[in-house]
Amino acid sequence: MNASEALFLVQTDDRKGVLAATTGFFAGRNFNIIQCRQYSDLIEGKYFMRIIVDFSGIGVTRQELAREFGQFAASMQMEWTLHFRDERQKVAIMVSKTSHCLYDLLMRVAEHDLECDVPLVIGNHPELERVADRFEIPFYCVPMTSDKSEQEAKVLELLTRHRIDLVVLARYMQVLSNDFIARYPGRIINIHHAFLPAFQGSNPYVRAWERGVKMIGATAHYATAELDEGPIIEQDVERINHEHTPDDLKQIGKDIERRVLYRAVRAHLERPVLVTGRRTTVFSRRFSFG
Amino acid sequence: MNASEALFLVQTDDRKGVLAATTGFFAGRNFNIIQCRQYSDLIEGKYFMRIIVDFSGIGVTRQELAREFGQFAASMQMEWTLHFRDERQKVAIMVSKTSHCLYDLLMRVAEHDLECDVPLVIGNHPELERVADRFEIPFYCVPMTSDKSEQEAKVLELLTRHRIDLVVLARYMQVLSNDFIARYPGRIINIHHAFLPAFQGSNPYVRAWERGVKMIGATAHYATAELDEGPIIEQDVERINHEHTPDDLKQIGKDIERRVLYRAVRAHLERPVLVTGRRTTVFSRRFSFG
Amino acid sequence: MNASEALFLVQTDDRKGVLAATTGFFAGRNFNIIQCRQYSDLIEGKYFMRIIVDFSGIGVTRQELAREFGQFAASMQMEWTLHFRDERQKVAIMVSKTSHCLYDLLMRVAEHDLECDVPLVIGNHPELERVADRFEIPFYCVPMTSDKSEQEAKVLELLTRHRIDLVVLARYMQVLSNDFIARYPGRIINIHHAFLPAFQGSNPYVRAWERGVKMIGATAHYATAELDEGPIIEQDVERINHEHTPDDLKQIGKDIERRVLYRAVRAHLERPVLVTGRRTTVFSRRFSFG
Amino acid sequence: MNASEALFLVQTDDRKGVLAATTGFFAGRNFNIIQCRQYSDLIEGKYFMRIIVDFSGIGVTRQELAREFGQFAASMQMEWTLHFRDERQKVAIMVSKTSHCLYDLLMRVAEHDLECDVPLVIGNHPELERVADRFEIPFYCVPMTSDKSEQEAKVLELLTRHRIDLVVLARYMQVLSNDFIARYPGRIINIHHAFLPAFQGSNPYVRAWERGVKMIGATAHYATAELDEGPIIEQDVERINHEHTPDDLKQIGKDIERRVLYRAVRAHLERPVLVTGRRTTVFSRRFSFG
Repeated sequence: MNASEALFLVQTDDRKGVLAATTGFFAGRNFNIIQCRQYSDLIEGKYFMRIIVDFSGIGVTRQELAREFGQFAASMQMEWTLHFRDERQKVAIMVSKTSHCLYDLLMRVAEHDLECDVPLVIGNHPELERVADRFEIPFYCVPMTSDKSEQEAKVLELLTRHRIDLVVLARYMQVLSNDFIARYPGRIINIHHAFLPAFQGSNPYVRAWERGVKMIGATAHYATAELDEGPIIEQDVERINHEHTPDDLKQIGKDIERRVLYRAVRAHLERPVLVTGRRTTVFSRRFSFG
Repeated sequence: MNASEALFLVQTDDRKGVLAATTGFFAGRNFNIIQCRQYSDLIEGKYFMRIIVDFSGIGVTRQELAREFGQFAASMQMEWTLHFRDERQKVAIMVSKTSHCLYDLLMRVAEHDLECDVPLVIGNHPELERVADRFEIPFYCVPMTSDKSEQEAKVLELLTRHRIDLVVLARYMQVLSNDFIARYPGRIINIHHAFLPAFQGSNPYVRAWERGVKMIGATAHYATAELDEGPIIEQDVERINHEHTPDDLKQIGKDIERRVLYRAVRAHLERPVLVTGRRTTVFSRRFSFG
Repeated sequence: MNASEALFLVQTDDRKGVLAATTGFFAGRNFNIIQCRQYSDLIEGKYFMRIIVDFSGIGVTRQELAREFGQFAASMQMEWTLHFRDERQKVAIMVSKTSHCLYDLLMRVAEHDLECDVPLVIGNHPELERVADRFEIPFYCVPMTSDKSEQEAKVLELLTRHRIDLVVLARYMQVLSNDFIARYPGRIINIHHAFLPAFQGSNPYVRAWERGVKMIGATAHYATAELDEGPIIEQDVERINHEHTPDDLKQIGKDIERRVLYRAVRAHLERPVLVTGRRTTVFSRRFSFG
Repeated sequence: MNASEALFLVQTDDRKGVLAATTGFFAGRNFNIIQCRQYSDLIEGKYFMRIIVDFSGIGVTRQELAREFGQFAASMQMEWTLHFRDERQKVAIMVSKTSHCLYDLLMRVAEHDLECDVPLVIGNHPELERVADRFEIPFYCVPMTSDKSEQEAKVLELLTRHRIDLVVLARYMQVLSNDFIARYPGRIINIHHAFLPAFQGSNPYVRAWERGVKMIGATAHYATAELDEGPIIEQDVERINHEHTPDDLKQIGKDIERRVLYRAVRAHLERPVLVTGRRTTVFSRRFSFG
């Protein structure tokens, strides 16, 4: 790991000269640009950029880097965020009774496929404590109460106390309140067990069976106030046939859900994702940046 | 081609002994069973079978075969259809102004990927006559009129005159009346340029772009009275990303539409497709039967 | 689980009447045929069948079932095996230092995606003991010795003592001796990290990078005396591009290896796999039979 | 079509400042950078770039643009090529007796999926003249002769006379001499009907069947002096099963060959392909540039 790598995510209005000015900013300071991706959304008139630079041996602190780029960005009317490679994000996983996504995420953290810390797992039922135990992750059971805001307050307190950066709903099966979502904007990833926008809402596998579709899918998206309407990060599908019952679809769907949620969390951690309205830009990436 | 091969498609209530009785029927007459596929739909309590037999050298005529199996099937309360390998289906292709599906189907007939005859192409606009001409297929332009039934009557007259077995709507872009559909039940295949049930209706690529999906698809289904609600025969998808505009989706979608429509028409021609309600059974097949 | 289900795997010479005779055998005894798959290999002149029957309420013991079918099969010159649904296979997993396949298999056993018992994990290095520990599976370290037969003797003793039915080489990274393989014919599954027959042998990811392929793959096969030449059970691939280094290929390959090995083990456990020479018949299956 | 768009393909040694200098070159002349892709091959120490700029309204001619960039590139030790959007490439298709790739390519030219001119089709047999006729493309039959160089001389004369930019071997089934290949370096695309490097040489489908693989593929590559060893542009695969005979593989393979060859030709025409040694860089592209 090279601690002296910095990643900038930039959005601005699409116009001439943005790329040259930005690369010039870094070249003028003698930074090495490790990778640079850009994309002009001609329909919305927006310009997106993801730049990774190496600032080792240059004698600039992180604060100075942020301040200097901030001045440049202000002069260019850019929105931007800055991330350093040696910052590890803290991820909370929220679950209910279904274990497959939780197992998969914890295995991938253990395998270093996902570079992040998981300080806790929160369940609204006690069943999955044994899974968290196997990976030595603290498990907190916060059961649903008649007053939902009470339960959510307890969850929020846990998230705050553990300085959580990202919340992953790994088949949590509960709709979060708007207040909760507003506390982690663009930082709650949900997995829906259907190929959205088909089969929004409950029981998608039964409904897929009834409609007689020939493929089923899963969708990972940022949670927003509207259920299953948030910006999509990743989707995938698998072919099925007439022989598969709704239970078979559920079984087949487990693998789709696992890989879609994993890829979305990984994309978020590596920071190629920019959100505009209901759409996401997910830059292809060679350099992971967990 | 072995002219003495017969294919039976059978549906009946699921119960003990159907397979043994049916294979016994053929074995008792010394027929060789070339292939046999069965499937029990335990949810609906239905049994489906597709049997291909060779009746050469047995001294039974096609009429006798149909009569004898008919008696057996009646005693078993089976619904059935019988097809012979040397029967070629007559297929009419209906189009509007978009040529990619028409080109693909005609090329595949020329290539013997689709074993059928195409006696005519019907367009509601004159533009695609040049495509039909290239393959020496007669083209009839039957433009839309203020009274739709008048236009449909002309089309139906053409279909009847050419003894059409199957109608393929290759981006015909018009909703057929229920009366029309009732004339060819289970014999009109439509291609919808979206992964149904997502994006039913018009402009699916624009709506897919707006929703920010990460894959787009196409769906071939039998046309029924309800738009885009007919039994699905085949679906497929392709991965897209944030850079693709609605026009790009349309371009990418062309290939998905081509292959989905082709596979559905081929499946219909080879007769592995059985319909129950909104669901289709599409047996996997090694032995084509065009 | 329905304990009174029996599965027959049958091979014989392809000829008339086999299906009718076999289904007649079961129908005459009033068994319900739950599923029946057949396949004629016309090139080799072989006939393969997989039949699942329910023998509950018929008053026949397993021994009687085996004896009666054995007599029938002898009269038909059939090779056959018989399996009962409530028999769980015992699987030994052999590993070296690489954990991803081991994690995946143990997770899938815990999740009931794989219905089998894993009485032990055997490593030729001690590193993966912690993974086995997390799933409470006994781990035995049997390091390589200068005399390979000595090490293999220890492994064989463990396999025998635990009455192992299936050996899974989950990136074991050692070539087994012919004597070892002969002890478990058709019962050792290996994962090779390339799309065989491309890149047989060592360092396939580096060689794939050097050749500039656009997809990489993995292959699960039965181990035979010739390295990487055994009958293939399952393969899969993933698209790569010019940006991926050999290390990236290794990382991407982990997911391919995981799913290919899982599917192969599952196929073996559910018993749709029949081997003839270097080729396998893997029947598609709706009814798992672990 | 915007005629005032220019595309630069650049290779140079990987080092600091290349991107900033290059974008600065264009920004200093007030060009709009429509798209810019870069890639550092850290293993080979090479830097690749593909830049599309709009030079309308700037008052620079194409010659001036080439001269000025040439001076800049020389100062940077860059290798480069320059292309203009309104230049259409001339493509010759060479065939033998198999029609599926030829049909597909001609259909895609007619459909504007491939933006190029096809002034002629050259066959070493007369059979495919009828296919070329359907699309009104002149067909030249140049049969093989005992002296291969004589036949190749005639072909080369045709290519020269029609000022051909790209030669597509659409199942030409003959090995070209090194002299021939040297005349069109990096400008001859061949389709091999296997997933290279597996099944190099003849009869790949039969050998795939014998080996019992579970997927088959096709590979499009630049022809080089060594058979089936040229830099790969595109590959794809499809799943097969035990039921498929070698003839089935051939039939399934037709679709793989069609789409792989199409994508490779399209990639070449849109100019995202750079070759280094046996490896190709194929930039993902939103802006086609036929």
